[in-house]
Amino acid sequence: MLSETFKVRFYETDALKHVSNTVLAGWFEAAREPVFRYFTPEMDLHNWPLILASYKIDFLRQIYFGHEVEIRTGIQRIGNSSFDVLQQVWQQGEKAAEGVTTLVHFDYRQQKSQPIPPHIGEQLQALLIPHQ
Amino acid sequence: MLSETFKVRFYETDALKHVSNTVLAGWFEAAREPVFRYFTPEMDLHNWPLILASYKIDFLRQIYFGHEVEIRTGIQRIGNSSFDVLQQVWQQGEKAAEGVTTLVHFDYRQQKSQPIPPHIGEQLQALLIPHQ
Amino acid sequence: MLSETFKVRFYETDALKHVSNTVLAGWFEAAREPVFRYFTPEMDLHNWPLILASYKIDFLRQIYFGHEVEIRTGIQRIGNSSFDVLQQVWQQGEKAAEGVTTLVHFDYRQQKSQPIPPHIGEQLQALLIPHQ
Amino acid sequence: MLSETFKVRFYETDALKHVSNTVLAGWFEAAREPVFRYFTPEMDLHNWPLILASYKIDFLRQIYFGHEVEIRTGIQRIGNSSFDVLQQVWQQGEKAAEGVTTLVHFDYRQQKSQPIPPHIGEQLQALLIPHQ
Repeated sequence: MLSETFKVRFYETDALKHVSNTVLAGWFEAAREPVFRYFTPEMDLHNWPLILASYKIDFLRQIYFGHEVEIRTGIQRIGNSSFDVLQQVWQQGEKAAEGVTTLVHFDYRQQKSQPIPPHIGEQLQALLIPHQ
Repeated sequence: MLSETFKVRFYETDALKHVSNTVLAGWFEAAREPVFRYFTPEMDLHNWPLILASYKIDFLRQIYFGHEVEIRTGIQRIGNSSFDVLQQVWQQGEKAAEGVTTLVHFDYRQQKSQPIPPHIGEQLQALLIPHQ
Repeated sequence: MLSETFKVRFYETDALKHVSNTVLAGWFEAAREPVFRYFTPEMDLHNWPLILASYKIDFLRQIYFGHEVEIRTGIQRIGNSSFDVLQQVWQQGEKAAEGVTTLVHFDYRQQKSQPIPPHIGEQLQALLIPHQ
Repeated sequence: MLSETFKVRFYETDALKHVSNTVLAGWFEAAREPVFRYFTPEMDLHNWPLILASYKIDFLRQIYFGHEVEIRTGIQRIGNSSFDVLQQVWQQGEKAAEGVTTLVHFDYRQQKSQPIPPHIGEQLQALLIPHQ
């Protein structure tokens, strides 16, 4: 799996003194950057090739300020035009959250989905997580 | 269903000129405020009674700046200590997103879940959405 | 002054159980929406006419979850191409913060500032706060 | 000066395809973490020793997605109970923003400011930026 490490930012906590649940979708998006680059190596915002269809996040443990978090990213499913990204938040040796995001290869001008080109499919394949 | 209306804030957009997917968990949390009040009428941050276990959000249409969004909130399931909140984002007469959040009645001091008291269960019941 | 009222959102708090200082720039931006409309009545994101040059925010009191905030917005200075917006956060009858934001009438294509057209200058003038 | 490097996160952009101005207060807060540790080496959220009095941020250039930002942090002024932190955002070899934040050594229980202890003052002194 891909790995990205962040310091928890103070403003990402909430009044319960842990990380707000609302923050994780943003962390996961940030950690998907290498996957974005498969589709647009120059990160071209004028021809962005992906749209998000859904995400589900399970919160397993509270996440705290003062310790780094590691985000691990793999691919769980590759379809014709969509694929599922599995991501985990680890902190202090424990898995604290796990999420699955469905992304679609998308043409914003035509406002419709597009098949995933084979050379990108191969890159996603290399990140495929064996079924558990 | 409960209803809450927000103006989209400019900073909630991203470089794709629509609302960032990372914003919706926060909108849904904000719109659950009446549900929080069932559990803590004084919104007591020192004895907060709920923890979030998971959310899943499906994005059906792009959401844009310049038009209000309405968040509709109902209850989909009531268990012993947990319950599921169903929420929708509506913009310009169209359902743009739908999410389900699982919350748990929780004691942060003991770090364990608690049964939902009957008088709160009744309030949740009043928001129960008939199965479709 | 213009007035806009928000509920404080739970995720806008931080571990100190008050509203994070990082939130106010966003509240002020949201409350400047009527000023944006002077420059672009249709809120045209493809020809956005303003860029932000600076802001300064003074925090006078802690702001808490559970009570609404009112944002008051006026104009403090009108220059040739730039102007200063004065904004205040009020909560429970007390002024909790005050900020000044300098905005510039800007052409993103040419990447340069533009004089403020007279008909817009008049609208800003109507919000001008008399010197105290 | 202290240095901290971040990737720009996609959700930190706005519809103008650059980083939202509302994001910088959070970046600066995150980059002040070493300064927080002078006051509370264990990052003790139950006895947080600082409150923010004001910040001013000047935006010199647009900041873009796809390139890292470096935040440089130094001390500009040390008073009896307050001090000013000077911070800069650098991207692709250019200074893109500069801010000054006033922090106060603060006792949240008594709700009043406290003198900066000499051993902390010395640490701040070591980051003092010579007057330009």
